[in-house]
Amino acid sequence: SIDAQRLLGRIRELGGIGRDGEGRLVRLAASDADRLGRDRFVGWLREAGLEIAIDRMGNIFGVWQAPANAGHAPILVGSHIDTVIDAGIYDGCYGVLAGLEVIETLKASALVPSRPLAVAAFTNEEGVRYSPDMMGSLVHAGGVGIDEALAAVGTDGSVLGEELARIGYAGDEEPGFLKPHVYLELHIEQGPVLEREGVPIGAVENLQGISWQRITIDGVANHAGTTPMSMRNDAGHAAARVVTFLHDRAKASNTPTVATVGTMRFEPNAINVIPSRAVFTVDLRDPFEHRLQAEEAALAAFLENLAADGGVAISVERLARFEPVIFDISIVELIEAAAKKRGYASKRMTSGAGHDAQMMARLAPAAMIFVPSAGGISHNPREHTADAELVAGANILLDIVAQLADQ
Amino acid sequence: SIDAQRLLGRIRELGGIGRDGEGRLVRLAASDADRLGRDRFVGWLREAGLEIAIDRMGNIFGVWQAPANAGHAPILVGSHIDTVIDAGIYDGCYGVLAGLEVIETLKASALVPSRPLAVAAFTNEEGVRYSPDMMGSLVHAGGVGIDEALAAVGTDGSVLGEELARIGYAGDEEPGFLKPHVYLELHIEQGPVLEREGVPIGAVENLQGISWQRITIDGVANHAGTTPMSMRNDAGHAAARVVTFLHDRAKASNTPTVATVGTMRFEPNAINVIPSRAVFTVDLRDPFEHRLQAEEAALAAFLENLAADGGVAISVERLARFEPVIFDISIVELIEAAAKKRGYASKRMTSGAGHDAQMMARLAPAAMIFVPSAGGISHNPREHTADAELVAGANILLDIVAQLADQ
Ligand SMILES: NC(=O)NCCC(=O)O
Ligand SMILES: NC(=O)NCCC(=O)O
Repeated sequence: SIDAQRLLGRIRELGGIGRDGEGRLVRLAASDADRLGRDRFVGWLREAGLEIAIDRMGNIFGVWQAPANAGHAPILVGSHIDTVIDAGIYDGCYGVLAGLEVIETLKASALVPSRPLAVAAFTNEEGVRYSPDMMGSLVHAGGVGIDEALAAVGTDGSVLGEELARIGYAGDEEPGFLKPHVYLELHIEQGPVLEREGVPIGAVENLQGISWQRITIDGVANHAGTTPMSMRNDAGHAAARVVTFLHDRAKASNTPTVATVGTMRFEPNAINVIPSRAVFTVDLRDPFEHRLQAEEAALAAFLENLAADGGVAISVERLARFEPVIFDISIVELIEAAAKKRGYASKRMTSGAGHDAQMMARLAPAAMIFVPSAGGISHNPREHTADAELVAGANILLDIVAQLADQ
Repeated sequence: SIDAQRLLGRIRELGGIGRDGEGRLVRLAASDADRLGRDRFVGWLREAGLEIAIDRMGNIFGVWQAPANAGHAPILVGSHIDTVIDAGIYDGCYGVLAGLEVIETLKASALVPSRPLAVAAFTNEEGVRYSPDMMGSLVHAGGVGIDEALAAVGTDGSVLGEELARIGYAGDEEPGFLKPHVYLELHIEQGPVLEREGVPIGAVENLQGISWQRITIDGVANHAGTTPMSMRNDAGHAAARVVTFLHDRAKASNTPTVATVGTMRFEPNAINVIPSRAVFTVDLRDPFEHRLQAEEAALAAFLENLAADGGVAISVERLARFEPVIFDISIVELIEAAAKKRGYASKRMTSGAGHDAQMMARLAPAAMIFVPSAGGISHNPREHTADAELVAGANILLDIVAQLADQ
């Protein structure tokens, strides 16, 4: 079994790195805080005696390779260590540190694996600073070119490539240089299902599609006191109509479709001025591609009507679009079997969140293991998973990696 | 008649001061840009040979006093030179510069007025950086204490008193030191009425009540992909419901009530995080106090229901509250008579915007003159009034001041 104290200690230590003035965990991709987190992770890779490789995308790999298995495609375990704003400490970091823990455990055992073992921390999984999310693994999987990715402009106007160079994580390796035999990712569920059902292990068999758009509504700024209601072209009101449309539609449907408006900005944003502009993002998700397309079409039709009768101009920019993914069934079955062997119940489930595994599934057989999230809360400092559940998940990962590395 | 070229030239010159990096006119109260505008205005007062007085509130007064009329209460013409964000050049500045123009014109004539003539530029009329609006005239009229006003914290976290000291406009005079005999204010309408009716002069007989509130909605941050619609406490969606409620209610009513949500902020404001908090402002106005109260009550009831069924906590902060004002009927009649004498049609009307006259009416008989706003547009760089209309308004002001100063 893994060294539970070492794993839990590292999760907490990494979770303490990158706190802002108010004590909030904010380790956005390629920021100064991210540099500190990366430095700590690389230090642990070095202490574990792994070979360290960093690609041009800033993705960090730690590889344990023995003379006997050199040249074989590795078993790769990965996730990310960037965070959202005011984040919890488990999202991403748990999977990366558990990957390292599993390799250290196996390295210290008698086993000589038939394949190299590797752990990856992918750049900008969260997609908060730069779109799209899962960008590092997307580039690794060849889904977008490295030059296009490095040119991404952040919400703060920064350029990803420049920021990676600035923090010292623009590496030399070409993205995709490491071709995994299998890709595994251990992650907190970030949703309420496992906790509600009292099941400690999720065998993730699919991952829903994600559609991200940025919508800009242009109206006419005017005086809040003198402009009759009938003569307004209020961009803020039009934006509010989109928010309620999306929310009410998704809530009323009997599908698992989710719709979120997470960001909103008014211009000029003054108390006595009718907003001339509203800019906001839409996050739509559904496990089925045809339904995701139907939701996108419904939004487009609503925006068209709104522009027609609201006296506003609307433009839409696509920030990310990923189809649903179905994971490798044989690995899903391995997860179920490993859980059973350790005496844990498991449940096949859908991932509501996007993950690097979604991209890596393009390159190699892939699947994910979930552990419960207390109250289903994530992307929130209250994100929590019990120590015993974290350790259980890491031990299942250990068993599967050991089994795959022994074949 | 006044010197039209001098007046128009000054309006344009002042409108060129305080442009931001994008060329937008942003001369927020007590900012560096405001200092530049004030310096220019004070320079003109000096050139005109007026006595300059600045009070602790930063209100600037230029006074023409002759030995013959010393000690008498002055005829005061005033308005403001602070602006909103991305403003037009007429709002406030027109009235201040026309006041100066009228005094210069009378000073150059044979008239020896029976009372001193004074022009005032009041601090922070717009209320964009510090609440409430009309703050300088409110303090002058004794409606709020100077210490409370100077302690006002701005949208940028600044403190008004410190900012006034920093820009060199924390004067020595006690607020209210100058007690006017009559207060007059010339202003662009900022609304569509005069243009629509083809009338060049508005004789403003009343001014609607203003209610400003800041509303904070607290929900729960959670993951946009994993959190079912039924389990969300989405502060952004709750805020959007308030925006549509207010807008739709005011639009559907057959009263002149107006409702505006001009500012909006989400937290943490990330694309894949359900907003934990939304903070926004509400601007409600109506010419009748009982109706303004009814609108406030309807909003409060809506918020109560929203908190009950939306799973969010709502707190409300009052930023400004002014009852409707009825101006002095004898001055309104003077305006009508002066317009008629110069051959202009005039119209009695309600002011939709708040103005310093609203505060000064507590101290002295007061009224306002309006000139048309093209397209009814204000608080917008497209704010425009034709030169001939600006000159007509200033000449009406000249005639009334001359008449009052001759009594
Ligand atoms: N796991 C996770 O939170 N990924 C971020 C991308 C997403 O929004 O799903
Ligand atoms: N005149 C004017 O725009 N005043 C600002 C205060 C208000 O919002 O009415």
